[in-house]
Order: sequence, then C-alpha cells, then structure tokens
Amino acid sequence: MNRPLRFISFEGPEGSGKSTQARRLADWLRARGQRVRLTYEPGDTGLGRRIRELLLHREEEMRPETEFLLYSADRAEHVENVIKPELEAGGFVICDRYVDSSYAYQGYGRGLPLDWLKQVSAGATRGVLPGLTFLLDIEPEEGFLRIGRLLDWLESEPLEFHRRVRSGYLHLAEAEPERFVVLNAAAPEDELFEQVVSAVGKRWEL
Amino acid sequence: MNRPLRFISFEGPEGSGKSTQARRLADWLRARGQRVRLTYEPGDTGLGRRIRELLLHREEEMRPETEFLLYSADRAEHVENVIKPELEAGGFVICDRYVDSSYAYQGYGRGLPLDWLKQVSAGATRGVLPGLTFLLDIEPEEGFLRIGRLLDWLESEPLEFHRRVRSGYLHLAEAEPERFVVLNAAAPEDELFEQVVSAVGKRWEL
Repeated sequence: MNRPLRFISFEGPEGSGKSTQARRLADWLRARGQRVRLTYEPGDTGLGRRIRELLLHREEEMRPETEFLLYSADRAEHVENVIKPELEAGGFVICDRYVDSSYAYQGYGRGLPLDWLKQVSAGATRGVLPGLTFLLDIEPEEGFLRIGRLLDWLESEPLEFHRRVRSGYLHLAEAEPERFVVLNAAAPEDELFEQVVSAVGKRWEL
Repeated sequence: MNRPLRFISFEGPEGSGKSTQARRLADWLRARGQRVRLTYEPGDTGLGRRIRELLLHREEEMRPETEFLLYSADRAEHVENVIKPELEAGGFVICDRYVDSSYAYQGYGRGLPLDWLKQVSAGATRGVLPGLTFLLDIEPEEGFLRIGRLLDWLESEPLEFHRRVRSGYLHLAEAEPERFVVLNAAAPEDELFEQVVSAVGKRWEL
C-alpha cells in the first residue's frame, strides 16, 4: 500500500467552522516542523480568482452543469499549480473544500448524475485525492444561525437544497470510511480540534 | 429515423472562411423564408462573453484540461440559452464552431484523451449535436497566409499543432460521414458556397 497523500480536505456547509479548523490544523502542523500549504476552492490561483468571480457574482442564472464545469476548471488549475507542487515538495496540503463539495452541492444538491461528475473530475484532478477528509456535519438550520445571514449566492438556496447537500455528504462519507472522518460540527471548537489533531496524528504518526 | 436537427455547424481553422460561409448560408435561408439564428463559440451568451475573455486574454498558462472545461462551460450555456430555444421554435441554428472544435484542438491538438472529452461533452451539450457539419479543410500554411498575422493566443501555436488539428478534423469527419461534409477551403468563395447550399438543400429539401 502507498502511504496516504499528505493532502487533507475539510468539507461541510458554510457555518460549520471548517475554515477555522483548517487554519488551526495548519498552525499545529507547522509548530511540529511540518511544511504546510493552507488553501481553498474556488479561487486560490490567478485564473481561479477570475473563475470564482463568475461563480459567486453572477449576472444571470447558470445551468448546474455550467457551474460544475467552472468549479472543475478552477480545480484543474488548483491541482496543477498549488496542490501537486506542494505535495511533491514534501509538504502537507490542507484544502478548504475540494471535489466532495462538487459531489455534494452539484450532485446531491442540484441533481446532476454522480457518474458524470466523477468522469469529469477524473480529468480535472488527474487522480489527486485527499488522504484524509474531515466532514464537519451540522443541521442546515444550525449552520445558518451561526453565520447569521445569507452571505453569497449559494447560501440563498432553499433549506431543502441544503438538506440534500447534507445527506449527500453523509453518503459520500459512508462510501469511503477509510478516507472520511465525520465530526459533529455542533460540538465546541476546541473539542472538534482535538478530534482533528487526533485523526491527523494517527494517520501520519505525528 | 428522426429528421436531422436543423442545426448546422461550421468547423475549420482560422482563415478557412467558415464565418463568411456561415453568414452567407444564414442570408440564403432567410431569403427562403426560414427563421435562422447565426451564432458562434465561444462567447455568444452573457456568461459566455466573460468565459471567452478568460480564454482569449490569458494572464498565465492554462492546463489543456482547464481550457477544455472552460469551453465546455461556455457550450453548456450556449446550448441551453441559444441553441435549444431556437431549435424548439422551429428555426435553423448555424454555429461557427461547436463541439468538434474541442475534439480537434484540445483532443488531437493538445493530446487530451478523446474519451474524456466526449464524456464531459455529453453533459455539456445534453446530446444536442448538429444535423450537418461543414469542415472547411485547408493547409495550415495557407490559412495563415490568408489571415496575414497571428490574431490571438490560439493562433500563436506552432505549425505542428495546427497540423495535428487539421488531421484530427479529418479523422472526425471520416468517423461520421453522414454528418460531415468536407470542403476544400482553398477553392473560391462562391464555389464553396454552392457546395454548402447544395448540401443544405438536399438535407432539408429546400
């Protein structure tokens, strides 16, 4: 068996606290002498920022296929210019959202066939998948309460959409138990962080 | 057998005269009382214009996968907002470049696997394919002579690239002889137009 890629993704809805946990994990790894690249999707490359602009500031409706193809174009650049170079240099990559976000939102949320999403993603990611994925699971209502208001277009979807996304995420986690760690994001931040650190420590013997 | 979709695409390199033939065919059909939408890729929708900007005015290198995913996102919007509505209203759609451009340029030209391009395109086009495709075939050197200079990024590729694109187009035409009509684009414009009109007249009994 190959060792798992030093590539860790955080998944979950807005308001689940994943960005905070990702940042804290980066600090923790750096304090242990590890080289770390903390990154995010969409938009952490030059072209990605221009694509993110199309996705988050829409001038018109967009087909779900179009949305997914734009996320995939962003991902293709992200893998090539950020994720792969960092992994090849021996560093950890911690990514706030990756391909599972597309499966959850465009697949389970908007109803695009998962087979097609996976075919497209195979070319976009060139098979670079996380060695460990944290799913920060939370009731959509509770996530909304935390952020207090609708921050961008995605968050203006009906509650039913967010329920499908949540249950989609849980299906994905169930299908790949060796990759996913599901956390109850309603727990206090420090408690969550202990679970994150414990899983990472075990996986890479840190 | 279903009648072929009233959807006609023109393919070939820059300098092959396809835009001129497309425009003349639109006029010819309109003079015969047909409703016609003359369109093009990339960029004939609101979002498409913004995507075209990313493709043709690049600030940095782009993976071929990224390029293809952006063309596909543009195409997904184009099919939904322009091509399908016009076909459903009973009109002809004449399109300057469509999915065969991706197969020729990103597939044969840049070496992306054709299987993957076709999988991605199935979702982007929702199976909407031309009933008739004109390939305006010309030696790359002759096409360049006609345009006189390098117009945009695509045209700044080495000659070898354009040779692969040309032979790719010819392969595609050979594989679907019932859809493709290959024309020698070095012939005079009026002679080409006669061949275009003759093929369209036969296909739809006009």
